[in-house]
Amino acid sequence: MSLEQRYWAVVEYDGTDFYGFQLQAEARTVQGEIEKCLERITRRTIRISAAGRTDAGVHATGQVVAFEVTWKHTLADLQRAINANLPTDIVFNELQRVSTPDFHPRFSAISRTYQYHILNQPWPSAVQRRYVYHVDRPLDINLMRQASRLLLGSHDFASFGKPPQGSNTVRQVTEAEWQLRGDGHLIFRITANAFLYRMVRKIVATLVQVGLGTIPFDSIVEILEARDLNSSSPPAPACGLYLVKVIYPENVR
Amino acid sequence: MSLEQRYWAVVEYDGTDFYGFQLQAEARTVQGEIEKCLERITRRTIRISAAGRTDAGVHATGQVVAFEVTWKHTLADLQRAINANLPTDIVFNELQRVSTPDFHPRFSAISRTYQYHILNQPWPSAVQRRYVYHVDRPLDINLMRQASRLLLGSHDFASFGKPPQGSNTVRQVTEAEWQLRGDGHLIFRITANAFLYRMVRKIVATLVQVGLGTIPFDSIVEILEARDLNSSSPPAPACGLYLVKVIYPENVR
Repeated sequence: MSLEQRYWAVVEYDGTDFYGFQLQAEARTVQGEIEKCLERITRRTIRISAAGRTDAGVHATGQVVAFEVTWKHTLADLQRAINANLPTDIVFNELQRVSTPDFHPRFSAISRTYQYHILNQPWPSAVQRRYVYHVDRPLDINLMRQASRLLLGSHDFASFGKPPQGSNTVRQVTEAEWQLRGDGHLIFRITANAFLYRMVRKIVATLVQVGLGTIPFDSIVEILEARDLNSSSPPAPACGLYLVKVIYPENVR
Repeated sequence: MSLEQRYWAVVEYDGTDFYGFQLQAEARTVQGEIEKCLERITRRTIRISAAGRTDAGVHATGQVVAFEVTWKHTLADLQRAINANLPTDIVFNELQRVSTPDFHPRFSAISRTYQYHILNQPWPSAVQRRYVYHVDRPLDINLMRQASRLLLGSHDFASFGKPPQGSNTVRQVTEAEWQLRGDGHLIFRITANAFLYRMVRKIVATLVQVGLGTIPFDSIVEILEARDLNSSSPPAPACGLYLVKVIYPENVR
């Protein structure tokens, strides 16, 4: 009898010191570190799959991964063993057995939510510099909110990114909200069925231009219609971006 | 006519990658980096003085320093030049000319405020690990609050630290409060006329023992009376500690 079992986990990481999520032969990646950890514990080669392949420098509090291991002890013991063997910039916040045989963290997901953190004050912050994008000139959050509303719904986002595979650049955005925290923090929260490559960072950079008054809020409409990557702003820095949530249909995990 | 002028500044730093504040010949320190920056700008050897010599790993959002430089341009230009030449883990958030000739950031101060951040949840956080002390077992904040009240007023704190100079270990604590944030954060805020070496970290470590139920809340009274460094807990980790404010009498800066 094989004790091999499939698991899913919610993973948090500090993207600063990684060359992104996806495995690379010569560079430190989140996938590489997790697989190394699982191999140390189980003495087997293990491949994980993930909901999203975040770029270098991008953080996650809600990345979802899945993998198969043989483990004879309790689930809590496995989570403890994993967290004890991971580097401190990766944490498994939740670990469960997969109950549906065909669950896949990427293909089963129905939506993803990202947050982007901007620190809008004259000087950068020493203790937050790894986790926010510092914008020194004042941003008009109301203009940014008006522009964000134009992103809601199904649109061709070809101006904001390339698809990770295939050629379909239509995405459905169901949430695009700016939240203002008292301490100079602007937090953008965006949910879509899926995202194009660098889409959130190009959207944020474009909305920052709106907030600075460089472009009018409704230029979002023209940028979307242009279907040209150069019509939007170059991506905002990776350090402000967090993958915070991946949603699955009920009972699919 | 000499253009030399004395300045004070409010300095923020991420203590993680420093061997403390105070200058050391062979190690990276906050003082060392600030003096190197001022020398680069002014082409003179410059010594700074500071309100508090924080330990290795301790952060600051409200450290105060003072120094003399010759500068022909505006105050805003000087602050810009300094921030452009500092490493990203130090920021001068405020810069002013000193108006009183005998102002000294340490000797003129009438009180200091520190904050200590605890993350109280089962697993540590990857994105907060440099800035909080992770405690996995549940803490009873009400017991910690009761214990903290016993620290208020003038006491001999010999059990909680050694004086940086002299032998007087009496300190006056005017604030010792725990604030509970919704996301598992417990923030301790303590203000005193001055602090002993490692006093805040030993107080926090002892209060954590109270919160865990290991010692009763009123054992604080016995620990104070013992006047013995071994009667309190070993210091809590440096990474949770922030120097947040230094108060001066009106019109002294």
